[in-house]
Amino acid sequence: MPLNSVTASIPSSEISHNRVWNFSAGPSVLPLSVLEEVQRDLLNYKGEGMSVLEMSHRSKVYGNIISDAEATLRRVLKVPDNYSILFLQGGGTGEFAAAYLNLMSCKSVREKQRKLGRQLACDYIVTGGWSKSGLKETKRLGGITNVVLDGVKSAATGEVTYNSLPPVSEWNLGKPEETAFLYYCENETVHGVETPANYVVDVVDPLVPVICDMSSNMLSRPIDISRFGAIVAGAQKNMGPAGVSIVIVRKDLLERDETDPEITRNIPSILDWCYYDGAESMPHTPPTFTIYVCGLVFKWAENLGLEALEKLRETRSGLVYDMIDAHPEFFHGLVDKKFRSAMNLVFTLPTRELEAQFISEAAERNMVQLKGHRNLGGIRISLYNAMPIEGAKAFVIFMKEFYEKNVQ
Amino acid sequence: MPLNSVTASIPSSEISHNRVWNFSAGPSVLPLSVLEEVQRDLLNYKGEGMSVLEMSHRSKVYGNIISDAEATLRRVLKVPDNYSILFLQGGGTGEFAAAYLNLMSCKSVREKQRKLGRQLACDYIVTGGWSKSGLKETKRLGGITNVVLDGVKSAATGEVTYNSLPPVSEWNLGKPEETAFLYYCENETVHGVETPANYVVDVVDPLVPVICDMSSNMLSRPIDISRFGAIVAGAQKNMGPAGVSIVIVRKDLLERDETDPEITRNIPSILDWCYYDGAESMPHTPPTFTIYVCGLVFKWAENLGLEALEKLRETRSGLVYDMIDAHPEFFHGLVDKKFRSAMNLVFTLPTRELEAQFISEAAERNMVQLKGHRNLGGIRISLYNAMPIEGAKAFVIFMKEFYEKNVQ
Ligand SMILES: Cc1ncc(COP(=O)(O)O)c(C=O)c1O
Ligand SMILES: Cc1ncc(COP(=O)(O)O)c(C=O)c1O
Repeated sequence: MPLNSVTASIPSSEISHNRVWNFSAGPSVLPLSVLEEVQRDLLNYKGEGMSVLEMSHRSKVYGNIISDAEATLRRVLKVPDNYSILFLQGGGTGEFAAAYLNLMSCKSVREKQRKLGRQLACDYIVTGGWSKSGLKETKRLGGITNVVLDGVKSAATGEVTYNSLPPVSEWNLGKPEETAFLYYCENETVHGVETPANYVVDVVDPLVPVICDMSSNMLSRPIDISRFGAIVAGAQKNMGPAGVSIVIVRKDLLERDETDPEITRNIPSILDWCYYDGAESMPHTPPTFTIYVCGLVFKWAENLGLEALEKLRETRSGLVYDMIDAHPEFFHGLVDKKFRSAMNLVFTLPTRELEAQFISEAAERNMVQLKGHRNLGGIRISLYNAMPIEGAKAFVIFMKEFYEKNVQ
Repeated sequence: MPLNSVTASIPSSEISHNRVWNFSAGPSVLPLSVLEEVQRDLLNYKGEGMSVLEMSHRSKVYGNIISDAEATLRRVLKVPDNYSILFLQGGGTGEFAAAYLNLMSCKSVREKQRKLGRQLACDYIVTGGWSKSGLKETKRLGGITNVVLDGVKSAATGEVTYNSLPPVSEWNLGKPEETAFLYYCENETVHGVETPANYVVDVVDPLVPVICDMSSNMLSRPIDISRFGAIVAGAQKNMGPAGVSIVIVRKDLLERDETDPEITRNIPSILDWCYYDGAESMPHTPPTFTIYVCGLVFKWAENLGLEALEKLRETRSGLVYDMIDAHPEFFHGLVDKKFRSAMNLVFTLPTRELEAQFISEAAERNMVQLKGHRNLGGIRISLYNAMPIEGAKAFVIFMKEFYEKNVQ
């Protein structure tokens, strides 16, 4: 794709001179126009005489803010009518537990369980640190889990690496009639593994609801929501600041057998999707300001459109991956090309010393948050929606210079 | 107390002309100086080149923001060293569940339970809607509860009213060796009932940890933390914006028998106080911006001092209560004087029509959020820390004029 046509769709005001290029994996860069609007209205939101930070969630004005946010997200992602959009607290980690607890309480899952005569298993696809954390939480809460795959195992050493997915023929899917749901994480923020759109739903039996953690790639490309049971995400990558999680759930999965007294026994209210669904996300005080900022980001995304955002993500990450592929002996990409993430790009340099030097020279050029996750090391740069193409370009220019100076 | 001496301690910049007097029960008014600082630094926090909204929680700068917030709160409230301060998500409602789940997993409580040979009961003092919600959540999660008191029962009709506390001699406290903890809410935001400082801890056996919901009066007066097992609160009244809950917990209550495999079985990670305590409130992404704003509010409170804040709350609420007491046939205070809240003042007018008129005439004078809670009706005005004395004065002047115009 010609670079210029893409650049043209980003307002030039996005490029500010006092700001750094923030490659953080999350919380992460937000659109400058959103921040400017937040700043402008901070003391007095649209003549209301108060900040959104101070606004009662029961006020009419705030009611409009949250319902606009919901409606905008629904339009941007083309969320079908038979799906609820919920705003909750507890981050991505809260939704690990919520996914398990809510699904196990759902009427159709309970019926399947009754037929089977024993506890259903939960299928987990483990492609990196975050799906592993989801699996761990379900185990902690007493769930029976079935690991469909766990990264890629070296035939020689038996060592597991999270840099690809094994062929579908090797997946250990549970029997549909014995499986409550299947869970995966579509973009592994730490390991930089992104599963292509529809890759998983194409394989799973339609009798098994698919629950997907899209914390770090939601809103970066179109999704066919109708193929999912639920999509869960912390907002703090493409969608807004930290402090709110977003759940998009098929309404029939919120149905429960109300005569079953044990049904909510293990679900604290704040993790109970039905608690929020019945009250338009406000059965109690929501994280008001955070949702307001998300709403502005959703509008910003709507103005660009999901197709343009997808092109942008491919362009941004393509610039960096091209440089990696051009000098693989120097920039060592950690992930199989087919599964490498357009959001979080992980690679190493020939030595630890060069990596440290790379990070510190980047900082001199106002490029920050390049260090790989503490569990993985190396370099990680995150290129979320709000990162202007110019940021990726600046980074690639720096990579090239650094390469030329340091290659042997 | 002479009014002028108090007014003098509030910076005059607090009184802004474009802003309304916001009497919301929460989220609620914040100090103007805090909002101004947030606004100033919104695009570029102290030369970091990014907004706090975009800042990685793993960055050094953010590490300082959260540890400063913790340290400031610790100083302001004189939190002893053997107490942890935690920042969590899930609001006040999240802590209803967390209090129960964490206490029931605590080593000393489990030992007591083993000795007893059956499940311990949880003592609940019900003084209004919020303690009732806490009780309900514990029941939902399978807790055995003992209601110490449930408002005040009319001898004639048997009807329960939340406008006072029965005499201590009538409290139905559980036996200490059969009781896991005692729970109460020190300020009932809906019903306007505030229990005097130390009123409850003076009565409860020291063998029973006291858990107190101080969501709506924390930071408004000194507390002797050492007398509590844990204090829990949503931030969105005196402490900051909605989206973070604050827990102050005695460290021995975080001890668990690690050999007990069932110990965390029912506690989702995000409600597990130990999960946060082990990682300085950042085992996963915290609500970064919300905590930042809270930190600024804590500094603002520290500058005034807790004693001054207490004087201010008494002055503000005293102005309004004096007017109520002067015209009890017109302004009908709903709560027994001994227990009426300095934070949330509830009263009725002679008719529904007058109440509607009162609210709409107040709005014309830029005084908003006067309507009583939907469960209670009438008028409620909330006078939190950040409400300038001038706001209370303006309200009282309005009350007087309204009274004179409408009294028969
Ligand atoms: C894909 C993914 N899932 C879950 C989480 C956990 O989110 P939180 O830190 O909000 O609990 C993260 C955090 O970065 C993530 O990247
Ligand atoms: C005293 C008290 N406790 C608990 C809550 C519940 O807090 P949240 O709405 O954050 O769940 C409130 C809310 O106003 C409250 O006033």
